[in-house]
Amino acid sequence: MNFKEKLRDIVQENNSLLCVGLDIDSEKMPNFLFGNSNDPYFEFNKSIIDATKDIVCAYKLNMAFYEVLGLEGFILLEKTISYIPNNILVILDGKRNDIGNTAKKYAKAFFEILNADAITINPYLGKDGVIPFLNYKDKCSFILCRTSNPSAGDFQDLNFENKPLFSFVAAKIKEWNDFGNCGAVVGATYPDELKIIRKKLGNDIPLLIPGIGKQGGDIAITVKYGTNRKKEMAIINSSRGIIYAGNDDDFAESTRKAALTLKDEINLYR
Amino acid sequence: MNFKEKLRDIVQENNSLLCVGLDIDSEKMPNFLFGNSNDPYFEFNKSIIDATKDIVCAYKLNMAFYEVLGLEGFILLEKTISYIPNNILVILDGKRNDIGNTAKKYAKAFFEILNADAITINPYLGKDGVIPFLNYKDKCSFILCRTSNPSAGDFQDLNFENKPLFSFVAAKIKEWNDFGNCGAVVGATYPDELKIIRKKLGNDIPLLIPGIGKQGGDIAITVKYGTNRKKEMAIINSSRGIIYAGNDDDFAESTRKAALTLKDEINLYR
Repeated sequence: MNFKEKLRDIVQENNSLLCVGLDIDSEKMPNFLFGNSNDPYFEFNKSIIDATKDIVCAYKLNMAFYEVLGLEGFILLEKTISYIPNNILVILDGKRNDIGNTAKKYAKAFFEILNADAITINPYLGKDGVIPFLNYKDKCSFILCRTSNPSAGDFQDLNFENKPLFSFVAAKIKEWNDFGNCGAVVGATYPDELKIIRKKLGNDIPLLIPGIGKQGGDIAITVKYGTNRKKEMAIINSSRGIIYAGNDDDFAESTRKAALTLKDEINLYR
Repeated sequence: MNFKEKLRDIVQENNSLLCVGLDIDSEKMPNFLFGNSNDPYFEFNKSIIDATKDIVCAYKLNMAFYEVLGLEGFILLEKTISYIPNNILVILDGKRNDIGNTAKKYAKAFFEILNADAITINPYLGKDGVIPFLNYKDKCSFILCRTSNPSAGDFQDLNFENKPLFSFVAAKIKEWNDFGNCGAVVGATYPDELKIIRKKLGNDIPLLIPGIGKQGGDIAITVKYGTNRKKEMAIINSSRGIIYAGNDDDFAESTRKAALTLKDEINLYR
C-alpha cells in the first residue's frame, strides 16, 4: 500500500485530517513523569498516542526534539515509531537536504532504517538533492514550499518575473511528481500563499500544514484553502497546543480533549 | 577561544587549508576491516585521523553517513568526535533548518551535545531559523549559499532584480554576522559564483568549500577565488578522493599521501 492509499484509508477510518506533533520537551512535559517513570519521554509519547490514535491521521516527529537528547533520543525515536499503530502515518520531520550521493543515505536512514511513511525535505539544492528521496515510490516526501515562521519570506517571497520563489518551488514539486509521491509543506500562517500553492498543485498532491495553534493559523481558512476538491489531501498539524494541553496526572485526557476539539473544528469546515 | 581564533591557529600550525570529510561508507571502505575488527567504522576513522591530523585544519563529518547506520552510527559519531585532537576543528555537516523554536534544539544538539566547532545550516527559512544557531557566539555556522551539486542552480540561480538568489543569501549572511560567527558554504564546482560570493562577503567570513576532487572543482581557481586577501579563511574539503585513496592494508598511508598532495597543491596557489 503506498502513502496516498494509506492516507485515504486512515482519513476515512478516523474521520480526521489532524496530525499530532510529538515534539517532546522536558521543559513543557508534566513534571510528575520525571519522578514516577524510568522512561518519562516514552511514557509521555505512549500516553499521547494511546489517547489520540482513533482521532488522528498521522503523527509527526520533529527530529530536533529527539536529536537534542543524544543517544537516548535516538532510542526513544525508534521505540516511539514502533509503538505507533500501523494504520496511522508516521511523518519524520527532519527537513533534510544534501547533494545526490549523500541524500541517498538520508533517504535510506529515514525510509529503511527508521521506517517512516513520509518525511520532510528542503528544496534549496534542487532536483538532484530531491530525487533520491522520491525514488522511494511508496513513501511521501513533503518538500518545504512556504514555511510557517515569521521570516519565511526572507527568501521564499523574493520575486522572479513577478512570481515569488515559493511559487517556483511549487512548480518544481509538480514537475518532480512522476511517481505521485511528492507532497508540500505550507504554513497555515500564510493563507494567501496556501491558496496559491493548492491551486498550483492541483487535487492530487498532499499538503502538510503546520502553523495551527500556537503559531496562530486560522482553521476555517486553512481547511478551505489547504484541502483539495474532495476536502482531503491536507494533513493539518498541531504539536504544542495539543500535547501540552494538560500538565497534571490527567494530561492524556486533556490532550485527547484538545485533539478532539481541533479534529471536530477541522471537520466542521470540510 | 572562538572558532576563528582556533581556525587561524590550526591553519598556521599545520600549514593547511585542507578539511578531510569522514564520510564513512561500507561499500567503499577497505574490505579487510570488516573481517578483522570489532568496530570497523571507528577503526577506519581512527586510522584516517591518525594519518592526517598533522596536515589538516578540520574534519567534516556529514551526518547522513552516520544516520544511515542507526544507533551504531550515533555511537560512532560521538566516538569519532572525541577522538579528533582538540586543536583541529570539527565541522558537523547536517544542513539543518527549522523554525526558531525548533532550530534552538538543533543548535543545542550540535553545539552542546555533540560539541561541534562548526556546523552547516540551510537558509531557506530565513532569519528566525538561523539566529538560534548564531547565538552560539564562539561556534561557527556555515550557511549554504551556492552548493556544489549539478542542480544547485534550480533555485539558487533564479534572478531577482538581476541578482541570483545565492547573492541575496550572501547579503543576508553578511547582515546576520553581528557576532562574527557566520560562514558560507560555496561549491568549488562553480568558480564564478565563488568569486562573486568572496567579494561580497569580504575578508572576514570563512568559506567552507566542498567540490574538490570527485566532484571536479579546480584547485588553483578555488584557492584564488575562495581565500581572502591573506590567502586564508577558506576551508577546502575533500572526502571520497582522500579517505578512499587506498583499499589495502596500507590504506591509511594512501590516504596520507593523497591528503599531503592536496594540501601541498592548495598551498602552491596561496
